[in-house]
Amino acid sequence: MTYCVGVKLSAGIVMMSDTRTNAGIDNISRFRKAFSWEEPGERVLTVCTAGNLSVTQGVLSAVNGAIRREPTDGGETILNAPTLYRVAEIFGQEMVRMQSLHGPQLAAQGVSADASILLGGQRRGGEPRLYLIYSAGNFVEATEDTPFLQIGEHKYGKPILDRVVTPATPLPQALKAVFLSMASTIRSNLSVGAPLDLTVMKSDEMRLSVMRRVEEADEDYVAISDGWSAALLDAVERLPEVADR
Amino acid sequence: MTYCVGVKLSAGIVMMSDTRTNAGIDNISRFRKAFSWEEPGERVLTVCTAGNLSVTQGVLSAVNGAIRREPTDGGETILNAPTLYRVAEIFGQEMVRMQSLHGPQLAAQGVSADASILLGGQRRGGEPRLYLIYSAGNFVEATEDTPFLQIGEHKYGKPILDRVVTPATPLPQALKAVFLSMASTIRSNLSVGAPLDLTVMKSDEMRLSVMRRVEEADEDYVAISDGWSAALLDAVERLPEVADR
Repeated sequence: MTYCVGVKLSAGIVMMSDTRTNAGIDNISRFRKAFSWEEPGERVLTVCTAGNLSVTQGVLSAVNGAIRREPTDGGETILNAPTLYRVAEIFGQEMVRMQSLHGPQLAAQGVSADASILLGGQRRGGEPRLYLIYSAGNFVEATEDTPFLQIGEHKYGKPILDRVVTPATPLPQALKAVFLSMASTIRSNLSVGAPLDLTVMKSDEMRLSVMRRVEEADEDYVAISDGWSAALLDAVERLPEVADR
Repeated sequence: MTYCVGVKLSAGIVMMSDTRTNAGIDNISRFRKAFSWEEPGERVLTVCTAGNLSVTQGVLSAVNGAIRREPTDGGETILNAPTLYRVAEIFGQEMVRMQSLHGPQLAAQGVSADASILLGGQRRGGEPRLYLIYSAGNFVEATEDTPFLQIGEHKYGKPILDRVVTPATPLPQALKAVFLSMASTIRSNLSVGAPLDLTVMKSDEMRLSVMRRVEEADEDYVAISDGWSAALLDAVERLPEVADR
């Protein structure tokens, strides 16, 4: 499995993904699932992928192929599409194409072709946007009411986000919440694992403010994960006791 | 769905279950999923059930029927079985019977017959035991290494238990952890809902130390849930900041 989370704040977009993939419990590998494109001051995009790896790699390959061909064929790409909405549509179309190409054969083998993509970014003149693109090519956008989107093993890491993240949350707080959401998932589910990829795109900068590979021994990751265990135990200690009746 | 959790500590067994069941998102009802039997000083048993309600109600009906008939037919029941292990076997056998009875028809209708049961308790002369009984009638027991077992929507509430509960955890701490595990699940998943049923069986007392229906407005529940939101925000605040690089 996989766990990826994207948070859209007034201050910017934070995205984090793990790198574990597995074909069965005895075939575990490491693949990057976070990919970014940057034209500083003009446009910044990051995607995180979950689900069938052949499908998501196929989508990325098609999207990147169009970018490589563009100087010659002048075609539409995620880097020249007029809006982020249109960028989400392009990912959706490539998703549908890959599903049509491999879905039936995969289904016949009893393998799921399901995949999903988080897309975050901003173009000059536009707002920061965060989308979740589904296997069917349709997508939803993060809003004020739901400022975070998750794909993959989303359940373990949801309670911390539900309690901590709002659009007004400052970036440093959101970074901690995202680390905690990931650390909780990794601790509780073997199919999600470090290293992690962290991307931050501050609002209106149209560039990658942070793009960082976080290893298991990373100082910040260890400090937050250990600090969290201590803080949780302390918080439980200080909560009112349940009446013994 | 459902969420039930059982924790086996040196100090005793804590079990909690929600009461929400649903046949589709537009057909939500309230059913008790926690059931106890008590012969003070001799034997105490509590089960929590998840999954197909007709299956778990069938299992309970059979188990209770045997208890009612026992004065006449002298048959084996969960109240006279020589060990808790044998009690788990009895639940497993009734589970298999219900699965055989309804499984094929349910499968033909595309409905899952899956069900699972947490069984906790102690008999005079024995140790406290906590079992998880599966649809196939097989079961596992909580041990020192894994002192808690969960059924139903288990993922949201697992991280808090992973970080807080060990066999040495005192009962008041464990009660708070169980409340928090349930509160996190309820907050993040609509298919789990109050009121809750809480049971505590202190070690070697062979009786129900606590058996309590916890409504949504319950003073303890509200204090813990609200206190937790505040404590989490505070804990996040106090964690070291992630380097902005």
